[in-house]
Amino acid sequence: MEKKRVYIAGLGLIGASLALGIRRDHPEVEILGYNRSEESRRIALERGMVDRATADFAAWAPLADVIILAVPIQQTIDFIRELAGLDLKENVLISDAGSTKAEIVAAAEDFLQARPVRFVGAHPMAGSHKTGAASADVNIFENAYYIFTPSSLTKPGTTEELQDLLSGLHARFIEIDAAEHDRVTSQVSHFPHILASSLMEQAAAYSQEHALTQSFAAGGFRDMTRIAESEPGMWTSILLTNPEPILERLEDFKEHLDRVADALRSKDQDRIWNFFEEGRRVRKQMEIHKRAGVDSFYDIFINVPDEEDAILGILELLRGTSVVNIRINEENREDINGILQITFKNREDLEKSAKIVRENTDYQVFLDE
Amino acid sequence: MEKKRVYIAGLGLIGASLALGIRRDHPEVEILGYNRSEESRRIALERGMVDRATADFAAWAPLADVIILAVPIQQTIDFIRELAGLDLKENVLISDAGSTKAEIVAAAEDFLQARPVRFVGAHPMAGSHKTGAASADVNIFENAYYIFTPSSLTKPGTTEELQDLLSGLHARFIEIDAAEHDRVTSQVSHFPHILASSLMEQAAAYSQEHALTQSFAAGGFRDMTRIAESEPGMWTSILLTNPEPILERLEDFKEHLDRVADALRSKDQDRIWNFFEEGRRVRKQMEIHKRAGVDSFYDIFINVPDEEDAILGILELLRGTSVVNIRINEENREDINGILQITFKNREDLEKSAKIVRENTDYQVFLDE
Repeated sequence: MEKKRVYIAGLGLIGASLALGIRRDHPEVEILGYNRSEESRRIALERGMVDRATADFAAWAPLADVIILAVPIQQTIDFIRELAGLDLKENVLISDAGSTKAEIVAAAEDFLQARPVRFVGAHPMAGSHKTGAASADVNIFENAYYIFTPSSLTKPGTTEELQDLLSGLHARFIEIDAAEHDRVTSQVSHFPHILASSLMEQAAAYSQEHALTQSFAAGGFRDMTRIAESEPGMWTSILLTNPEPILERLEDFKEHLDRVADALRSKDQDRIWNFFEEGRRVRKQMEIHKRAGVDSFYDIFINVPDEEDAILGILELLRGTSVVNIRINEENREDINGILQITFKNREDLEKSAKIVRENTDYQVFLDE
Repeated sequence: MEKKRVYIAGLGLIGASLALGIRRDHPEVEILGYNRSEESRRIALERGMVDRATADFAAWAPLADVIILAVPIQQTIDFIRELAGLDLKENVLISDAGSTKAEIVAAAEDFLQARPVRFVGAHPMAGSHKTGAASADVNIFENAYYIFTPSSLTKPGTTEELQDLLSGLHARFIEIDAAEHDRVTSQVSHFPHILASSLMEQAAAYSQEHALTQSFAAGGFRDMTRIAESEPGMWTSILLTNPEPILERLEDFKEHLDRVADALRSKDQDRIWNFFEEGRRVRKQMEIHKRAGVDSFYDIFINVPDEEDAILGILELLRGTSVVNIRINEENREDINGILQITFKNREDLEKSAKIVRENTDYQVFLDE
């Protein structure tokens, strides 16, 4: 029996990390790679991510049993169109990694419908602040959602075959309709990016007339604008391939703002209080506070002085305990960011650690409630 | 010469922490405390934060050389009105700690104008996620802005006298017009809180029809809604005492959203790209990336596996280096949160630490650019 051959088109962060993930559980698979850039091909070859690499996408597609398109959204659509004209292996399995799904799935259904291929759209919700093959890391998929969006080109067993191939990612596989994927991500990701960049744009304009705007920007503002530093090209493509759900969320959001403005204009203390209280209540219930499969975090909060080694001192005390998450920011203490937050895997470690810190330091220690 | 007597009205987090800060540099000062709650008075007395405590605000005000109102905004205004009717010490110095300033300063000018007192509004930009005297900690003011808003009741030397009294806070003292304070904070704090709670409200409603909304909420959404968990009562008061600047920012923000929507409706790729690029460019330049007096952070980023002790292992390697900030979040790796970010005090420690981690682990290590 011949080796299974997987062709990964695009050896950026996602493509190269996928290659590493496939290698982990399936060392027997032969991995071919495509990338325009010679540098990326060289890195992928040198690090053994791929067995062979090409700059000619079309030339090698006919060799593959599985083709994964890990290129920007528009190029994904272009490659799907190109695949329709190639003499692919019978029953080849094609997938992608685009952040929006409806346009990509529609392109597949348009161009590949008459072809003897299988296709399932996919969105691995993983990333890093660095890009490129050099940044590849199989860990970026750990516990992340890997979303499949089946369509008429997805045959029985298609997603299962991909899940088996990708088992080494240790991702959370899930299936959802492509249009629904785009609606949900417009709410929790695409539109929030517009909010963040708009707030940044607004504050930048305001600071022209109000010099202390930047100085007084504290933890809340910092957190709300962090994603405004994302890569503009990728987010432009996301907006352009998911306009209706995003515009719908944007117009809906203006109505939410109008309701707050009405309450404020009419000095309606109860409505304003309920608005804030509801936000707090719902967020505390969200999965945001949960870890995969674990109902709640076990957190302690420690007020640490702004001194060298204060953090290290505490972590030294906790050596050997199951710290799973740690977070501090000392820049400005307008809000909870001024505090060292340490998350443990279980209550036993939490309580043991709180006791240790209390006995060995004079810092304030709080348990999460 | 008699001991200087400071009266702190309100022994919550801020008032009690102020008491600790005064004690640090001025052990000779006698500190009187007011709090409605017996429990707070007991804690403040037991921990030596105050020398004496009362539940009768008006009774002790005449004893004080300095009165600091550290109660909620509305109560601050009520106490200012009450002070106008008391037989206070000649030239007593009155200040406050409210998050909005124009209404409080206006109340002082209304009620105290004819009295032989000095008044300077103040806003210590400090806090914690915990409240009450039991959470008091002098460190919450370290490097935080402590904003004074002088008015006609602020005589020459008034803010200087307060700064000397509060030198133990190690805060950054700054003076600004009260109305300008409220405008700047409406942009960087008050309106962003409305944005965060509105996004939370919108997503909560959306999740009723779109079940995966909460599941797919990743790092960006989490950061953008974090401040939606703030205390509703405090934020209701802030909105109600600063309505015009906040409403102005809200209406202006809708125009920013409309411009993005226009660009998206007309599929104007360049305008959308410029919108994201400008947000990124401006944020990278912001003080947000700076530490008090230091031009830039020295950060390394390490991709760590989702394993017990991975973080501790790295920190063990870096024992003794000047770690000033550490941040990780492994819940979901859609964005940079999946990465352990460690900030050092200087480039030397940064480079030494990067070398140590690279030599002793096989994790991906990136330096900040």
